[in-house]
Amino acid sequence: MQEIKLNTHISGRFNLELENLRNSVLTMGGMVEQQLCDAIAALRDNHMALAEKVIVNDFTVNAMEVQIDEECTRIIAKRHPAASDLRLVLAINKTTADLERMGDDIERIANLLIKGSLPVSEDIKNGMIATGNHVMEMLRRTLNAFARLDAEAALEIHMGDQEIDEQYKQLLTLAVSEMQQDTESLPQWLEVLWAMRALERVGDRCKNVCEYIIYLVKGKDVRHISREDMQRRLAELRQS
Amino acid sequence: MQEIKLNTHISGRFNLELENLRNSVLTMGGMVEQQLCDAIAALRDNHMALAEKVIVNDFTVNAMEVQIDEECTRIIAKRHPAASDLRLVLAINKTTADLERMGDDIERIANLLIKGSLPVSEDIKNGMIATGNHVMEMLRRTLNAFARLDAEAALEIHMGDQEIDEQYKQLLTLAVSEMQQDTESLPQWLEVLWAMRALERVGDRCKNVCEYIIYLVKGKDVRHISREDMQRRLAELRQS
Repeated sequence: MQEIKLNTHISGRFNLELENLRNSVLTMGGMVEQQLCDAIAALRDNHMALAEKVIVNDFTVNAMEVQIDEECTRIIAKRHPAASDLRLVLAINKTTADLERMGDDIERIANLLIKGSLPVSEDIKNGMIATGNHVMEMLRRTLNAFARLDAEAALEIHMGDQEIDEQYKQLLTLAVSEMQQDTESLPQWLEVLWAMRALERVGDRCKNVCEYIIYLVKGKDVRHISREDMQRRLAELRQS
Repeated sequence: MQEIKLNTHISGRFNLELENLRNSVLTMGGMVEQQLCDAIAALRDNHMALAEKVIVNDFTVNAMEVQIDEECTRIIAKRHPAASDLRLVLAINKTTADLERMGDDIERIANLLIKGSLPVSEDIKNGMIATGNHVMEMLRRTLNAFARLDAEAALEIHMGDQEIDEQYKQLLTLAVSEMQQDTESLPQWLEVLWAMRALERVGDRCKNVCEYIIYLVKGKDVRHISREDMQRRLAELRQS
């Protein structure tokens, strides 16, 4: 577990506020995780009511983003956080945007049922469920890394996204071969393709959050650098 | 033009820093606009060198995001901005993320050429160029609204996104009918579909930036509310 000095400032009240802010992000993340779980179950069981629940609950996810952002603004204005505290607040400001957009991606999966565009083939459906479970595991681990401010775990999760990309590519190849046999249903297939891509994007957004965690803990921005550079830079940080 | 009181604090140096920060965002936005312009031209003229230029330049867009975010952090830590100044800095912190991801979307269009997956049909190509020009106009207007901190213009642009969505839907319908005649090329068509969607997403991200502008000028968060509610809320703000 990484140590960042969240508890060195004098104000106990300020500590409490930062702690509450972190907890709010975890609550929002937990809600997004539940949404993904529900969307996958709805897909698996062809469960219309559950799909509708996902769509309704997305409003709550959206509201959480606005509320947490307001709290970030309030804390900066009132407490003038510096160093790691400021990094925490700014990382949260970015994290909420990614969590909210994960919510939108997940809604797209639930929309498959609402629009009656469920994948016609069992293989595709099972492939989507398997990828969905993989992404859900990635999200769960990302939120844990956030809770423990664990940059090493965040890096590991970041690297692991390659597996989801691979799984997604295989799913696409399967979809294309099925589409070629079933050109009548292409409009429906398009909806399935967007939902597949939405799943893969949730994984990408987990990667974004992992980058914020690394920045937050290490104070170094690791966005937009190559995998190798990121490993090298983290190795340097470990020694520093 | 909206008035927000950026110039009421005593420190002239602070004013200058905020002005520079705004200018950096406009420079980054201008770069993204140029990238879109180049990607569309590359698509139109089948211009491989231009497509390669877009891909290389995306690194600069990425670097700009990191650099502006660092400046935001520095200003908050050093200047303790409050009220509208703080809103400006936080809105910029979110805007850079959307600009950077527009860059990724645009790169996807350039990638069509690199992968040799250019649309086979002239109709589709022309449709993409028309949509691309429409999105470019939206981006240009969004950056202008940001430069002038013009919430009314931002609202108008936000509303106008419906036209792009409509154009995109028509393009998709055309694509599906062509795909049905050309199932052999489905893998290539998939790349074209992702690029079309990427274009539409640039429009969505312009909408996000417009929401930040409204928040920045009016101090009210208009994310995640319906179009009607947004209009109503802005009418109230106008009178207040």
